[in-house]
Amino acid sequence: MEANKTKIAIVGCGAVGSYYGGKLCQTGRDVHFLLRSDYEVVRENGVQIQSLNGDFHVRPVAAQSPGEIGPCDLVIVALKSTANHCLGEMLTPLVGKHTALLTLQNGLGNEAALAELFPAQPVFGGMCFVCLNRTEPGVIHHIAHGKIVLGRHGGSPDELTAAIAELIRSTGIPVDVSPDLEKAHWEKLVWNIPFNGLGVAGAAGLDATLVGQLGPCQPIGPCLATDALLDNGPWEQLVTELMDEVIASGCALGHDLSPGLGEHQRNRTRVMKAYLSSTLIDFERGLPLELDALFRLPLGRAQAAGVETPRLAALCDLLAELDN
Amino acid sequence: MEANKTKIAIVGCGAVGSYYGGKLCQTGRDVHFLLRSDYEVVRENGVQIQSLNGDFHVRPVAAQSPGEIGPCDLVIVALKSTANHCLGEMLTPLVGKHTALLTLQNGLGNEAALAELFPAQPVFGGMCFVCLNRTEPGVIHHIAHGKIVLGRHGGSPDELTAAIAELIRSTGIPVDVSPDLEKAHWEKLVWNIPFNGLGVAGAAGLDATLVGQLGPCQPIGPCLATDALLDNGPWEQLVTELMDEVIASGCALGHDLSPGLGEHQRNRTRVMKAYLSSTLIDFERGLPLELDALFRLPLGRAQAAGVETPRLAALCDLLAELDN
Repeated sequence: MEANKTKIAIVGCGAVGSYYGGKLCQTGRDVHFLLRSDYEVVRENGVQIQSLNGDFHVRPVAAQSPGEIGPCDLVIVALKSTANHCLGEMLTPLVGKHTALLTLQNGLGNEAALAELFPAQPVFGGMCFVCLNRTEPGVIHHIAHGKIVLGRHGGSPDELTAAIAELIRSTGIPVDVSPDLEKAHWEKLVWNIPFNGLGVAGAAGLDATLVGQLGPCQPIGPCLATDALLDNGPWEQLVTELMDEVIASGCALGHDLSPGLGEHQRNRTRVMKAYLSSTLIDFERGLPLELDALFRLPLGRAQAAGVETPRLAALCDLLAELDN
Repeated sequence: MEANKTKIAIVGCGAVGSYYGGKLCQTGRDVHFLLRSDYEVVRENGVQIQSLNGDFHVRPVAAQSPGEIGPCDLVIVALKSTANHCLGEMLTPLVGKHTALLTLQNGLGNEAALAELFPAQPVFGGMCFVCLNRTEPGVIHHIAHGKIVLGRHGGSPDELTAAIAELIRSTGIPVDVSPDLEKAHWEKLVWNIPFNGLGVAGAAGLDATLVGQLGPCQPIGPCLATDALLDNGPWEQLVTELMDEVIASGCALGHDLSPGLGEHQRNRTRVMKAYLSSTLIDFERGLPLELDALFRLPLGRAQAAGVETPRLAALCDLLAELDN
């Protein structure tokens, strides 16, 4: 993967795709954005990134259909996982003999979905530790962080993993290569499950003591940002208990997650400003929630591994009630 | 798997689970039904099978939770695939060291879901060529056929495949062991995609020439049974074109489906009475459609294999519009 000649497609140009695609574009790569709703705006005006590290503006090649882009060296998938049934259609024209596929999507199962569709291609997963919001079409607000933890699906990191990591690092984004992609996913779920999940639960007007004793419920209040969850005793308790369930699940599945990981993440989150995770924003916009990737698949695997996860099970039920 | 000692759980006791579970029960196996809505009725009255081969009545052990059943030799999964996110919870207490898992669910991806959750267990898939309806709780109407085509997930048939085939055959049900489970799935999809899919499309009040030119649509008419689809020129044409797309897709994925398979299936279906497939019944009852397993995963794989499937793509869009 020679950086200067690398042809890159970004599939799913919400906040994550636009930010990382924008960084690659800024450093002179041949970057093609596959767009639907934002096509006109991005074609006219490019993409504006308002970043804590300095604002910038880029003009990726805007395409409305994957056929206009054609085969790429690297396809970066940042679609909502709720649209994974469209991957075959959206990616096929982008995939040639040597195309590498990198998913930056939330949660579990996304690499497997790509590998199932494109069994001959190398598949990578990247976890994005970043706070981003797409504030309007073509405008991304980069609030904090940005590191990617990268791994190869179904194997150990290899030369191609290193080349992709180096390509992303060349834009200034820190990249850690993980020897165990699934473990890295579970480490990130320790954060996502409580903060993405309970934030939406708060919108049901439930207090923390009621989660787990659920009947039909409807949104009656605002979502709870990270600070609201950590500043309130019962909610913080529930964050902690959920984190412990996720850590126990990851460990039972053979990934040696650190027992102190939950506390570390809570402390790191306390020093962040109030943050509304992607699931909260999806919910407030009336979009489908990433139930399978972020909640149901982790729950299913935890249960299959024989771990008791009553809090996670109750959270899944609640989110299913609230999902559109 | 010694037949007389074999402990069997049936998970998902709709028409398919109750019929095959009932046959195993009738021949004296130790069969446990895991039930939700029908629990009281089945515990009180057992299961009544009204079959073209002679009615019969059985009393499986009725359980409300998998923990009451405990580890089994064989777990037969006949849940709607739309409930696959519950597999971890429902199956874990049933799975011991030597438990085999057999899914009789529709479409693609179900064996993979089981293998993902229970990587140490042998996983099998069975395609049921049968016409069944659950007419009320605990009452199953067996209208026609019954054969199962059985295969091992991720490998060739082995001794355990043969033992499970023999166990089912001992109830009088014909079983073919397939050397290639994925090919067998594609052969069955050649039937399911047009008849399950277009039958529901008919309920949108569309005529066949309009499928593929879709805006938002709502159900305004009855579903179309098999005979209505085959007795009407434009619908029959669409059945044929869809079958050809599915055959081309299966072939492109490396399964040598016979080019005459579509015509063979249409002829075989013409001599059946009018039949409402499970998807039509789900739709008429307001239940979620098995979009992913029967339509979206096949479409995704066809597209990833580079096959043009405009009819299947239009059908997926239409069914997504109509889904609850």
